[in-house]
Amino acid sequence: MAISVESFFLSPEAEGTLQAQIQQMIAQGILSGRFRKGEKLPSSRRMAEHLGVSRITVTLAYTELQANDYLESRDRSGYFVSQNAPEPPAFTPSAAKGDMIDWGRAIGRRYTGGATPEKPRDWSSYPYPFIFGQTDPSLFDHASWRHCALRALGQKEFQALAADAYDQDDPKLIEFIARHTLPRRGILAEPGEILLTMGAQNALWLTAQVLLTQRRTAAVEEPCYHALRDILTQSRCHMAPVPVDRDGLRPQALPERAEVIFTTPSHQAPTNATMPLDRRQELLTRAREMEALIVEDDYEFEISFLRAPLPSLKSLDTDGRVIYVGSFSKSIFPGLRLGYLVGPQAFIREARALRASVLRHPPGHVQRTTAYFLSLGHYDSLIRRIGKAYARRRQVMETALEDQGLGVEGRGVFGGSSIWMRAPEGVDTEDLARRLQARGVLIEPGRPFFEAARAPRNFYRLAYSSIPSERIADGIGILANELRA
Amino acid sequence: MAISVESFFLSPEAEGTLQAQIQQMIAQGILSGRFRKGEKLPSSRRMAEHLGVSRITVTLAYTELQANDYLESRDRSGYFVSQNAPEPPAFTPSAAKGDMIDWGRAIGRRYTGGATPEKPRDWSSYPYPFIFGQTDPSLFDHASWRHCALRALGQKEFQALAADAYDQDDPKLIEFIARHTLPRRGILAEPGEILLTMGAQNALWLTAQVLLTQRRTAAVEEPCYHALRDILTQSRCHMAPVPVDRDGLRPQALPERAEVIFTTPSHQAPTNATMPLDRRQELLTRAREMEALIVEDDYEFEISFLRAPLPSLKSLDTDGRVIYVGSFSKSIFPGLRLGYLVGPQAFIREARALRASVLRHPPGHVQRTTAYFLSLGHYDSLIRRIGKAYARRRQVMETALEDQGLGVEGRGVFGGSSIWMRAPEGVDTEDLARRLQARGVLIEPGRPFFEAARAPRNFYRLAYSSIPSERIADGIGILANELRA
Repeated sequence: MAISVESFFLSPEAEGTLQAQIQQMIAQGILSGRFRKGEKLPSSRRMAEHLGVSRITVTLAYTELQANDYLESRDRSGYFVSQNAPEPPAFTPSAAKGDMIDWGRAIGRRYTGGATPEKPRDWSSYPYPFIFGQTDPSLFDHASWRHCALRALGQKEFQALAADAYDQDDPKLIEFIARHTLPRRGILAEPGEILLTMGAQNALWLTAQVLLTQRRTAAVEEPCYHALRDILTQSRCHMAPVPVDRDGLRPQALPERAEVIFTTPSHQAPTNATMPLDRRQELLTRAREMEALIVEDDYEFEISFLRAPLPSLKSLDTDGRVIYVGSFSKSIFPGLRLGYLVGPQAFIREARALRASVLRHPPGHVQRTTAYFLSLGHYDSLIRRIGKAYARRRQVMETALEDQGLGVEGRGVFGGSSIWMRAPEGVDTEDLARRLQARGVLIEPGRPFFEAARAPRNFYRLAYSSIPSERIADGIGILANELRA
Repeated sequence: MAISVESFFLSPEAEGTLQAQIQQMIAQGILSGRFRKGEKLPSSRRMAEHLGVSRITVTLAYTELQANDYLESRDRSGYFVSQNAPEPPAFTPSAAKGDMIDWGRAIGRRYTGGATPEKPRDWSSYPYPFIFGQTDPSLFDHASWRHCALRALGQKEFQALAADAYDQDDPKLIEFIARHTLPRRGILAEPGEILLTMGAQNALWLTAQVLLTQRRTAAVEEPCYHALRDILTQSRCHMAPVPVDRDGLRPQALPERAEVIFTTPSHQAPTNATMPLDRRQELLTRAREMEALIVEDDYEFEISFLRAPLPSLKSLDTDGRVIYVGSFSKSIFPGLRLGYLVGPQAFIREARALRASVLRHPPGHVQRTTAYFLSLGHYDSLIRRIGKAYARRRQVMETALEDQGLGVEGRGVFGGSSIWMRAPEGVDTEDLARRLQARGVLIEPGRPFFEAARAPRNFYRLAYSSIPSERIADGIGILANELRA
């Protein structure tokens, strides 16, 4: 690879002859690791033009660097970083900056320190990854995705790919969501009531920014999705955690003062409780009494291999108080970052304006590729394939858990991708997770899902979305042994 | 029951291959519940006749749908909707909602009403689009982009595409930025000092959230990029507009109380002023006196066809007080939504945590495709090609403006993509823009770039990034006539 001539410029404050400055500039590039062995330098003519110096000055600098083994010349093809050039240090020497600024003071607001835990980056190399929300490459239809992406890269699609659609979403994708995806959840919505987002996370974030203030209260399920807790903490609203039971959120436990209720009725995150139909009705009635809005995160409704999913809260809502959050990032793959919000136009308008200010819009190519993947029917095939595989895995899992006598706390009525587990009192599952990791088993400790002050230590989540069924029994065996130890 | 062949027709506006259109039509019929399990499809011969396509096309579509379990074939009797086909919804979608909620009260914070104007969506169909920041398809290297995207979709890249890289950016792209992009701006940075963002807009937004509060003051150039004004208005910090002159931001005019200074030294937005080297030094000195931070939006530094760009402010900064914003969305295409922030680790850590909460990360495929486009050298070729075309257009533009005697207010010293114009006093350029639009000419009125209360009406911007050079003279001619009218 050639080193661009733009990599070089002479500092007005530099000392020494021009030749020495040029030599130094090149040598420093090599020493700092920016220029690597074998890379070609600009010709002396181009370099001289670029720096505004005479060509002989550059040639002399190059010759000198050659004598010092920084560079080598190859017949008629110019100068290259020598194979014998000095080795750069293993790290880049940063130019000792930032000392003058007290960043502790300069930073006006902090966002670190949230509850969301990190996964090991190499989780897929573990033999027993009971890890949640990742894509199993053995189930994904890579060829069809590639085909749709390629089609979305076609010459005729250039506008969809490249355009600065400041205030608009891909009409093909919006149309598919309105005509095919939402009707399956019992929802009829017009394009102006749908907003594409960077995944469900972004949809929840936008919703919190529009509906909440420092004076308002959000009711959240306890336990709940840790990233939602981070979002609400950052929004500085009041938070009212409402403990869930085996049917999910309890409407009668909702505090009167809550203005916005966040809920996951399909599969409560993380307990997997499915809210029965009568409780959905009760929740809507209670929200009406409270004059509260409801934000329904309908994640995993499609992973319903045991029974058909219940109608969404939004489809039962006659008041228009439910904001609906959907996602493709979970069902296609999390790196996609694509989800959507459904709500009344007055709300969607504000969320759209905020999205425009924060990031403008999800990349055009991502939107168009997804539109094809959905409309060509690949998405539904994928969901069915996933459902079949999960059904098998779930069965194996249930058997293994029963064989080992492990305590199941919650499982989705119509499917899902994980089981919520309770270890005996006194077990710290974060400690357990560390010990298991050393033995090749990845589990998710439950603590980050709970409010920090009162978090129990003995819950954990076991997902079967990324582990092949033939590994499940062994993994559960290791887990049970470790629990007994 | 057989599905009537009349149920099918190809929309004249449909895109994609005939086979894909047929597949889509059948899949959607099944998904929406119009075609039921066990129903028989028309024979491939009848369907082909009816649609006016070849029989093999229909057969291929049927076979593909069979592979995806939408259809099943029965010996010699044809194709039927499969017993395993996806289920349509069991309940009827309901509509007519939203009356019960007073959304004026329910919305806690408003984001609409910002200064950012809308472009006509069909701008590219106008003959004289002097429009800023859009991609010219005649200059873009579509084939290479497609090639890189395809490579990034490869089987081996699945992790980069699909993974939930909650806290990490694509290491290939970060390495390229650290080793090749930033050194051209005189900047040495380690990976921990770089954060990928959803374009420069998102970088500015993240920066404002981390550095500013309701008690802090941001100095902004007057006029300035309207979306930056929206971002700062939403952050509720105090704003101190500082008028620019022909050399850009005036350090001595900065108010003592400003804690953060937003500036565009390469090409001031929108006046195109290039800040000279001595003023850059003066600005750094002034910021040190004020103990202020500087946010340098280095947009368009690469579009330097007249002269080499000056070193960035960040490269001259020995205190570490400069946060640097770069973007690929402008130079590749705006629909890409990819940019980056460079700053000290303490700052980048907070910005990364906020990004994770708001949207997690830019889509993996976008990151990896860009990494290939950069590292294979296509990006540099693109920039050179753009530079050559713009140089030619700029020349034609300058001549036309001079011929017509139009008042140029600012042009970039080393290049850029637009010229900042001043119409005679009394001309309202928003009115002018409307009249010109009716005659096929798109210009950008200057008002939204200024603080609302004191915005002059007679400025406008003419970009040459989307108009072919042979159209420029005519477009300027129409503009001049309209101004005279």
